[in-house]
Amino acid sequence: MRSKGFCELGFAKIDLDRECRRGFSEAVYCAGKTKEQILQISRKLLQNKQDVILTKLGKNKFDYLKKRLPRLKYNADAGLAFFVSKPKALKGYVAVLTAGTSDIPVAEEAVAVLEAMGNAVDKIYDVGVAGVHRLSSFISRIRKANVIVVVAGMEGALASLVSGLVNRPVIAVPTSCGYGASFKGLAALLGMLNSCSAGVVVVNIDNGFGAGYFASLINR
Amino acid sequence: MRSKGFCELGFAKIDLDRECRRGFSEAVYCAGKTKEQILQISRKLLQNKQDVILTKLGKNKFDYLKKRLPRLKYNADAGLAFFVSKPKALKGYVAVLTAGTSDIPVAEEAVAVLEAMGNAVDKIYDVGVAGVHRLSSFISRIRKANVIVVVAGMEGALASLVSGLVNRPVIAVPTSCGYGASFKGLAALLGMLNSCSAGVVVVNIDNGFGAGYFASLINR
Amino acid sequence: MRSKGFCELGFAKIDLDRECRRGFSEAVYCAGKTKEQILQISRKLLQNKQDVILTKLGKNKFDYLKKRLPRLKYNADAGLAFFVSKPKALKGYVAVLTAGTSDIPVAEEAVAVLEAMGNAVDKIYDVGVAGVHRLSSFISRIRKANVIVVVAGMEGALASLVSGLVNRPVIAVPTSCGYGASFKGLAALLGMLNSCSAGVVVVNIDNGFGAGYFASLINR
Amino acid sequence: MRSKGFCELGFAKIDLDRECRRGFSEAVYCAGKTKEQILQISRKLLQNKQDVILTKLGKNKFDYLKKRLPRLKYNADAGLAFFVSKPKALKGYVAVLTAGTSDIPVAEEAVAVLEAMGNAVDKIYDVGVAGVHRLSSFISRIRKANVIVVVAGMEGALASLVSGLVNRPVIAVPTSCGYGASFKGLAALLGMLNSCSAGVVVVNIDNGFGAGYFASLINR
Amino acid sequence: MRSKGFCELGFAKIDLDRECRRGFSEAVYCAGKTKEQILQISRKLLQNKQDVILTKLGKNKFDYLKKRLPRLKYNADAGLAFFVSKPKALKGYVAVLTAGTSDIPVAEEAVAVLEAMGNAVDKIYDVGVAGVHRLSSFISRIRKANVIVVVAGMEGALASLVSGLVNRPVIAVPTSCGYGASFKGLAALLGMLNSCSAGVVVVNIDNGFGAGYFASLINR
Amino acid sequence: MRSKGFCELGFAKIDLDRECRRGFSEAVYCAGKTKEQILQISRKLLQNKQDVILTKLGKNKFDYLKKRLPRLKYNADAGLAFFVSKPKALKGYVAVLTAGTSDIPVAEEAVAVLEAMGNAVDKIYDVGVAGVHRLSSFISRIRKANVIVVVAGMEGALASLVSGLVNRPVIAVPTSCGYGASFKGLAALLGMLNSCSAGVVVVNIDNGFGAGYFASLINR
Amino acid sequence: MRSKGFCELGFAKIDLDRECRRGFSEAVYCAGKTKEQILQISRKLLQNKQDVILTKLGKNKFDYLKKRLPRLKYNADAGLAFFVSKPKALKGYVAVLTAGTSDIPVAEEAVAVLEAMGNAVDKIYDVGVAGVHRLSSFISRIRKANVIVVVAGMEGALASLVSGLVNRPVIAVPTSCGYGASFKGLAALLGMLNSCSAGVVVVNIDNGFGAGYFASLINR
Amino acid sequence: MRSKGFCELGFAKIDLDRECRRGFSEAVYCAGKTKEQILQISRKLLQNKQDVILTKLGKNKFDYLKKRLPRLKYNADAGLAFFVSKPKALKGYVAVLTAGTSDIPVAEEAVAVLEAMGNAVDKIYDVGVAGVHRLSSFISRIRKANVIVVVAGMEGALASLVSGLVNRPVIAVPTSCGYGASFKGLAALLGMLNSCSAGVVVVNIDNGFGAGYFASLINR
Repeated sequence: MRSKGFCELGFAKIDLDRECRRGFSEAVYCAGKTKEQILQISRKLLQNKQDVILTKLGKNKFDYLKKRLPRLKYNADAGLAFFVSKPKALKGYVAVLTAGTSDIPVAEEAVAVLEAMGNAVDKIYDVGVAGVHRLSSFISRIRKANVIVVVAGMEGALASLVSGLVNRPVIAVPTSCGYGASFKGLAALLGMLNSCSAGVVVVNIDNGFGAGYFASLINR
Repeated sequence: MRSKGFCELGFAKIDLDRECRRGFSEAVYCAGKTKEQILQISRKLLQNKQDVILTKLGKNKFDYLKKRLPRLKYNADAGLAFFVSKPKALKGYVAVLTAGTSDIPVAEEAVAVLEAMGNAVDKIYDVGVAGVHRLSSFISRIRKANVIVVVAGMEGALASLVSGLVNRPVIAVPTSCGYGASFKGLAALLGMLNSCSAGVVVVNIDNGFGAGYFASLINR
Repeated sequence: MRSKGFCELGFAKIDLDRECRRGFSEAVYCAGKTKEQILQISRKLLQNKQDVILTKLGKNKFDYLKKRLPRLKYNADAGLAFFVSKPKALKGYVAVLTAGTSDIPVAEEAVAVLEAMGNAVDKIYDVGVAGVHRLSSFISRIRKANVIVVVAGMEGALASLVSGLVNRPVIAVPTSCGYGASFKGLAALLGMLNSCSAGVVVVNIDNGFGAGYFASLINR
Repeated sequence: MRSKGFCELGFAKIDLDRECRRGFSEAVYCAGKTKEQILQISRKLLQNKQDVILTKLGKNKFDYLKKRLPRLKYNADAGLAFFVSKPKALKGYVAVLTAGTSDIPVAEEAVAVLEAMGNAVDKIYDVGVAGVHRLSSFISRIRKANVIVVVAGMEGALASLVSGLVNRPVIAVPTSCGYGASFKGLAALLGMLNSCSAGVVVVNIDNGFGAGYFASLINR
Repeated sequence: MRSKGFCELGFAKIDLDRECRRGFSEAVYCAGKTKEQILQISRKLLQNKQDVILTKLGKNKFDYLKKRLPRLKYNADAGLAFFVSKPKALKGYVAVLTAGTSDIPVAEEAVAVLEAMGNAVDKIYDVGVAGVHRLSSFISRIRKANVIVVVAGMEGALASLVSGLVNRPVIAVPTSCGYGASFKGLAALLGMLNSCSAGVVVVNIDNGFGAGYFASLINR
Repeated sequence: MRSKGFCELGFAKIDLDRECRRGFSEAVYCAGKTKEQILQISRKLLQNKQDVILTKLGKNKFDYLKKRLPRLKYNADAGLAFFVSKPKALKGYVAVLTAGTSDIPVAEEAVAVLEAMGNAVDKIYDVGVAGVHRLSSFISRIRKANVIVVVAGMEGALASLVSGLVNRPVIAVPTSCGYGASFKGLAALLGMLNSCSAGVVVVNIDNGFGAGYFASLINR
Repeated sequence: MRSKGFCELGFAKIDLDRECRRGFSEAVYCAGKTKEQILQISRKLLQNKQDVILTKLGKNKFDYLKKRLPRLKYNADAGLAFFVSKPKALKGYVAVLTAGTSDIPVAEEAVAVLEAMGNAVDKIYDVGVAGVHRLSSFISRIRKANVIVVVAGMEGALASLVSGLVNRPVIAVPTSCGYGASFKGLAALLGMLNSCSAGVVVVNIDNGFGAGYFASLINR
Repeated sequence: MRSKGFCELGFAKIDLDRECRRGFSEAVYCAGKTKEQILQISRKLLQNKQDVILTKLGKNKFDYLKKRLPRLKYNADAGLAFFVSKPKALKGYVAVLTAGTSDIPVAEEAVAVLEAMGNAVDKIYDVGVAGVHRLSSFISRIRKANVIVVVAGMEGALASLVSGLVNRPVIAVPTSCGYGASFKGLAALLGMLNSCSAGVVVVNIDNGFGAGYFASLINR
């Protein structure tokens, strides 16, 4: 059944109007969905000439999908699969930074969605504040970016520091890296929300997808 | 031993007076009970001509019970088993909505108890606020319901939106769908409790059973 | 004493390099500072040809400053004073929405900083989800904005709803409006962080300044 | 300006369609609004033949309004003012219970809105579980009610107890009465959400208005 | 090495003075200890003519110990093993109540330590407030107890209700039974701490051992 | 109106059966009650030959009552007023300890209710763990008590320490003394609930009344 | 009464052994103590040749004391009074940094206790991460300190940054400066506890005294 | 690639300047890193004549590393591996205490890093406050230490007690030992932050590494 801009599957109503309305087709959050449900949704999107982005998708579910939808690509670090028919090449680039190595999977989720939406990306990983000279080496590359995504767990201090050095918007992604009083990312989240440097906004813990999507809206 | 309106099993005292007192026999919360305990309780209820509703019941425990109590029916999505001898057919119907596909198991728990208690149900799934035109298509069906159950995780915004469009009571069920700062349903719970639209009440996170039971009390 | 891009006052080190480095001069957070301290800081900024933005500034402190710095302007709703020598007129405009009337002071803080930084602003207040037809009337104006700031307390649902209807970035500002389980803005904050609609970022509770500043970075 | 079912005041958009859409006109949440704003809103509602309910309204603001809108009535315990032109007399009644004396102001808020919406009310105050024989005396009156509102602070146990004795829906209102680990109503809120008795739903802490409104939706 | 009232094992210093000082020998908390450590500690206690109580002891660890210390007894529900040489028979008895069946393992921990310390116990399980007539049947047995232990999860209302009916001390044990907003026993804990009935004290979530130990101190 | 063991005042139902049922007449929690309400309740209790205990009673309200009920006594530190006709002299005594001077008002609430209920009290104040030799001087007096009440804020460590030295029950009262991460008594509350020493139970933050009442139940 | 190393005042037991045992006499926490109690304690300390440090002492209470104990000195920013007979001059110095101007009162508490205990102090205020070049100017002075105290509210990032640049111990003091999701210092506290840079320890929110005291223990 | 004091691996930027800048080479936090990543980092450190410390390293990952880097040593209790070429022997020693046996793994992490950095260590385990005479036996050894590390879960009272007895700095490490209201170490963390004894600082829950590192900075 198709009507009024969406497609009815019973367990899901696929938004076919989204590309028109929002500039990009629906992204599918895969945690809590069965592989059969994800397959049906993906097929409907493809039949309707929509692009496909699948987030929080485990390797097992991807393997099941790949056999049936061979054009699907996968970023295993990010747990993100996608099929984009004709990515637009945007001018300028987005810088994606992490504080540590453990933050990379979340950063890769941002990178994957940024690239799927046509953005060039400059990855600068492991430049946390414990050794600030590492960050210093990359300042000029960071300053030239149109938008900056900062991914950090533990105390999340990198976002404030970077924002204080540039005149570009900074999107901060707290991660659940850490232990004890990090409370699964709460410490980083609160730190970023309380940034003493104007020009920082925040997304949900581990939400690399949301940061990449938002950065792409700006870069457009 | 039977006395004073309940039946003594040592580890449980089965309330045989409940149908008379409350209009429906005891529902058994199965998490934390062994399969043997659940079997004994179910048998006692059936011997005493009571209906049986078993909630939060895993598939393995159900299989054990089914061999011994073959009349038991099971809603696998909901994790809810039941035997109802003579459901009363109630007039009107209850609308059960979900914001997303991942909220369906909780919604099905509400549906299962609603049907067991004799209510007609109209299921409208995956109509969350990210694509509000999907909801718009169903407004007239929702307005005709006697009661509305809204099941949503993440920010739980659907309950307020629906309530603002209808003159029927809305029972909001937060779900634990989401990650990071959803804190296992806390975000949705707080959102629903703070609904800016009068006419919304809330039950525990993932408590589809409670919402269905309450909706049935109203619909009666 | 002046050296190395800042000016030393003992209790404060005024960043004179900020306009060059970040595109806008330092904003002074006034809560927890005495009126004498704020005066000294403001004077130093003006002496060094910097613009002045003073946030979270009470009426009494402003009156004290106004006598001594008569060019200072004040947005009383926002608790924000400023002196901007030559605001640049930017193209396009920023839409600032509130869910309710009680959210207006925070929205005005965003408006004040946006205007001080040279942005045109379209104010659309009291369009919360309890009466969604109010929002519908303004959709075309909202869609034409370059950036959208959504200010909402209680459950904060407006941000998700708006984001689902547009292809522009949405900056969500939770407010401390509400009572009981709003926990002084926590409910709105968590709701916005868990938005089911991609394209939403969040700032601190009641941080209208931060939202306006960030929106201006994008609009530039 | 009047258009599309609401009336534009700049700081507020008054929903004139609400009585038609929802069965009752807009209730105005007054905390965070100035007395002048409340007056303007009230006048617009009256000019448009709408009923008026003003919640969380302090005595000082009411006195200001009363001089200008003499038909307004006030329940001082509840902090609720109203003008209802033609209340409909509904059949049956709603029972409103409190656990203690300190819970009465919140209960009175429920009573005031119930009466404004045409419901008969039976008030049964101070029947908390510390002396359960007090409750026992009123069981038959409670059982005959169409809906039951239970208002309780501290541990909030009264809602579960009442619900276990009746076959009517119970709406539980946690209050901020208590100290220490009551955490301003959090203990009561959590207790009520975890009620071991099916048939209990919950509203926000101290939200007597919401409970009364919802009870009226059912009783209609 | 033995000196100054304790025995040195390197990883533990066994308190051999405790029976003299406190009236009962040391209880060993086994979570986080290896089975070898528990064995060494138990042996030292037995060599020094001390009684042994091992709490939070899993079945696997017990099996290992039983082969080496065959006199050890085990309450599998409670996860508690003990060897008591000469229990003193105390006068009177302690009543141990649970709200539900799922609370029984915690209650059995209290029972096990009570019996090990020489107390008679009256077990009254599954008498929660959802069917208060079940409790009513046992009031006279409860009133005759010297001390009452009430074990309950979810909202924990049973402790207040019982305390209001008796003139004996009530020790409340919150359990982690429940889901969603029970937050692993937090709801029950807060409810019990805020009991509106004087005469209730509280121990840690799931701490049946502590409740039994304390009840025994009183009953002595 | 008097019936069924309680006396109806509309805003309160006074439990006249409590002395018989529970061994002591009703204590009136005065926060949230008007002085007129407290007066009416006190008069009814006195007319019915009940003792009176008024907790959390401010000085102003007491002065109002004292003029009308001159027999009322007041412990200003504790904010507790009482009239007890014939206190029973109990054998033995209760030791009441505080960690610091700031904890004394809460301790005095326990002392006041203990004395009103006929207990001898030994007050040992300011013996916190920062100078443990102070505690050592009093060990023999503490060991001879029948029950021990320990009142402490900040980290609440005194309860565990005392319990480890005696064979008597210890009732721990966390206080809201402290700042920052004491979170108004939460730190002390959690510390006491997690006491590594068996034999400690806990009451609500600042609930000196509850501790005194419970100690009296044991000492009886 | 004097005995066993302390002096008995009833409401307080003054530790006269502390200087000998701990190297510095007792500091008196004045919040929650009456001015008369503080006077008595101070007099006893002076009579016994002890130094006096009074923390969290308001101006009014100090004025009362000053009339009676004229040798007392006061740091009004810090709310700290003291009389130290013969401060020892220690070698080296302690650097005390703040992120912002609003953090100065807490820093001054650290400075006051450091100076009272004989330490030289280098104050470097308002060097937060929003303008990191300010910090850079002071690196050599910071590196030469024996110990570093970092005082910061909001996200507390300064502690990690400083620690990464030096080889000296850093004591981090979170402050309650900030609003919204700073939750009165919780954000800064969690950030500092999760510092990605080894060499950082943390004290309670706003506990300048504790940081100064600890720094002095190291510097000795 | 090597430049500017660090070595680029793409997923990590290894700080080769740290020994010079901070007095000790970089410690690698291994949770969230793959074994291949850890190997590459370790090799680069060794090639550059840096010492290696690997924290939170599981046994499986260590076995993989050991085959390839045979000089690596491992403390299995601590989950910490290291290679230190020429440890400096420092004067004096650090005392490391635990409250219980279950706290030992965290203590061993502190011990391992202390020894790797050249400190002598005196281990005093299982001296919690439930049997304070055990602590008393070790006071003179504790007093002679230069620094004291106290590791404790549950209520964390040991840190305050020890600090009150000595004139040396105490570094408190809360552990996640406990259950229920210990909330995975939160109770111990809050208790230690609120220590009534000056001279206590705190690190993250289970952060034995941080405590050992900081103690070594002092002991140097």
